[in-house]
Amino acid sequence: MVQDLLPNNGDSSSESGPVSGAEAALLANGTLPGRKTLYALRDGEGEHHLIGGQVVTLIARAGDTGGLHEAAIMTGGKGATMAPRYHAESDAAILVLDGSVTLLLDGEYHLLNRGDYAYVPAGTVYGHTMLDWRTRFLTWTIGDRVGAMYPALGTPFSRPVQPENANLSIADETLRAAEAVADVVFVEAPKPADVPERVTNDRVPTTQMPYVLRAGTGERLVAAEQLFSFMQTQASSGDQFIAIMNEGPKGDAIPPHFHREHTENFFCMDGHMTMWVNGQEVKLLPGDYVQVPARHVHAYRLDAPYTRFFGWLTPGVFEPFFRYLGDAYDGHVFPMAPPPFRFERVLAHLDELDLQPLGKGDAPASS
Amino acid sequence: MVQDLLPNNGDSSSESGPVSGAEAALLANGTLPGRKTLYALRDGEGEHHLIGGQVVTLIARAGDTGGLHEAAIMTGGKGATMAPRYHAESDAAILVLDGSVTLLLDGEYHLLNRGDYAYVPAGTVYGHTMLDWRTRFLTWTIGDRVGAMYPALGTPFSRPVQPENANLSIADETLRAAEAVADVVFVEAPKPADVPERVTNDRVPTTQMPYVLRAGTGERLVAAEQLFSFMQTQASSGDQFIAIMNEGPKGDAIPPHFHREHTENFFCMDGHMTMWVNGQEVKLLPGDYVQVPARHVHAYRLDAPYTRFFGWLTPGVFEPFFRYLGDAYDGHVFPMAPPPFRFERVLAHLDELDLQPLGKGDAPASS
Repeated sequence: MVQDLLPNNGDSSSESGPVSGAEAALLANGTLPGRKTLYALRDGEGEHHLIGGQVVTLIARAGDTGGLHEAAIMTGGKGATMAPRYHAESDAAILVLDGSVTLLLDGEYHLLNRGDYAYVPAGTVYGHTMLDWRTRFLTWTIGDRVGAMYPALGTPFSRPVQPENANLSIADETLRAAEAVADVVFVEAPKPADVPERVTNDRVPTTQMPYVLRAGTGERLVAAEQLFSFMQTQASSGDQFIAIMNEGPKGDAIPPHFHREHTENFFCMDGHMTMWVNGQEVKLLPGDYVQVPARHVHAYRLDAPYTRFFGWLTPGVFEPFFRYLGDAYDGHVFPMAPPPFRFERVLAHLDELDLQPLGKGDAPASS
Repeated sequence: MVQDLLPNNGDSSSESGPVSGAEAALLANGTLPGRKTLYALRDGEGEHHLIGGQVVTLIARAGDTGGLHEAAIMTGGKGATMAPRYHAESDAAILVLDGSVTLLLDGEYHLLNRGDYAYVPAGTVYGHTMLDWRTRFLTWTIGDRVGAMYPALGTPFSRPVQPENANLSIADETLRAAEAVADVVFVEAPKPADVPERVTNDRVPTTQMPYVLRAGTGERLVAAEQLFSFMQTQASSGDQFIAIMNEGPKGDAIPPHFHREHTENFFCMDGHMTMWVNGQEVKLLPGDYVQVPARHVHAYRLDAPYTRFFGWLTPGVFEPFFRYLGDAYDGHVFPMAPPPFRFERVLAHLDELDLQPLGKGDAPASS
């Protein structure tokens, strides 16, 4: 039991201890909370807008995250597109969930498939066109200034799946209306002559710059049975966030803990998993999302033979934890003979980490 | 309630009526049954063999299907490959589940992504190379003569995920050993110079010939909220099987029924769904598989806002049912304003269909 290694050093004072009382309740009723709190959305839940033939499902608005980030799922069919644009002050990122997308990024066109990733620093022109009849990607922007463009660009919609025969074009005046309310500027860009090459880059840059990343790559660490792949680091995001793909077999639970500073976002990609949030159990299936703000106690366990979830953590302060917990790994598959979690290294550096482990008395039962 | 439209004409005689008693119990204990019966496997369950760095998970052996078909999931990483081969008397098919694959088919190389399909008639040379670190496809062969090649090519393995640093090569003598026990002949074929173009074909041939098919295409029918896409027809398979992608929103249950002749195979791709099999409820998540042999009563309901499952039905006799039930549809997304199920057309032709609906008294509660 990994929990045995952890001291009970949770501070229960109201300002720095874990959230308790009514505010600790998990909101999971299919709606967005409207305030920064712990909540879960099932696949397809959120606030839907129909924009140029694709459905944007907001899963985190500025008001739901305390202005840390805004996140959405874009769902559409072949030919659905969004005009090239940039955000003057807001970084953006994209993770493809299904189908394939042509992505314009900083003057070059890339082909992204499921699991491929792109980072779009503020000021970088980007745009996309969907290539498959079932295309979906997760996208989020840092801060609170971009999300208002979605309602301005579209109309409220009833479901997270695009309609047949939707109008794929977006009027210029609609683009201007979005520019008036959000950090977005739409621009002209050349159309690609052909479908571009699939993304091949497998390295996260060491400085802040636009990049694309092939599924299954990035900087990899292994800790016990789990493979952690950094798809975005603090250095590459200017300390604004980190993004990690976490995959493993059915295993033991990661023990309960909380963070004083950063918000953690869990998005299940494959398999299924169990989370415990402020002591409440929630099962996640592919497409399910949980926001865990600072000071909310959480734990998780992977439950299927191959489970994969994607996490982004805002702001970018927690990367050293993974480097203490795990060891560098060249492989692309979680190991057959797992090394131990390196909790002793984590504990030796606890004073420099935004981590508050709880004692074993608070641990969930592991499988 | 669609059930109200159905007469109770189930024949309960032992030879032609539904299976009852001990044989009606759903086998769902993580193992293959060893006899033709109703069973379910969760994602990753089955019999694993390590072959050339990829794991083949058998989900239906000849003995589990009464010799109707043999099915497997192939899971591997970038570079995992299987030498070109043909089956003298057995047809094969492939549905990509994750990642991407270069497929050699009848002398041409194709790039297949998630949801893309390939049909390999007997005598056609085919082979594959995996392109992503997480690549998976479903493959099955008609009859009982191919499956023995998997144990001959590999070694028993402990899990459905490939090991890191596996040996990707397969010795010639191993190929010869497989040829000695199964309907397979390995051949030389030229390697592709580059990654080929993604599959673009969107039509199922009208005669029996090798083909590839792009995800989301094929001949489409709509019935109520559900979109049925024929990826393989009776004509294109020589009446050996049909293959259908079935997608829709959360909806009502399809009423319970059974078939006298054909076996139906359910493979959940996205979302989640509920099946009732001989009155027993089973929830399916992505990667879960259920074999429903002839005379086993079944019903199902789609439970997520976008749920998609793939079915192959052996032998190919049931295609007319879908043509009576649904209407031709040009769209690629299930409709916002659904037309009715055309049960009256089904009932008017019930004597020519391999379909035994049950009365409403046997229907599951719908959501």
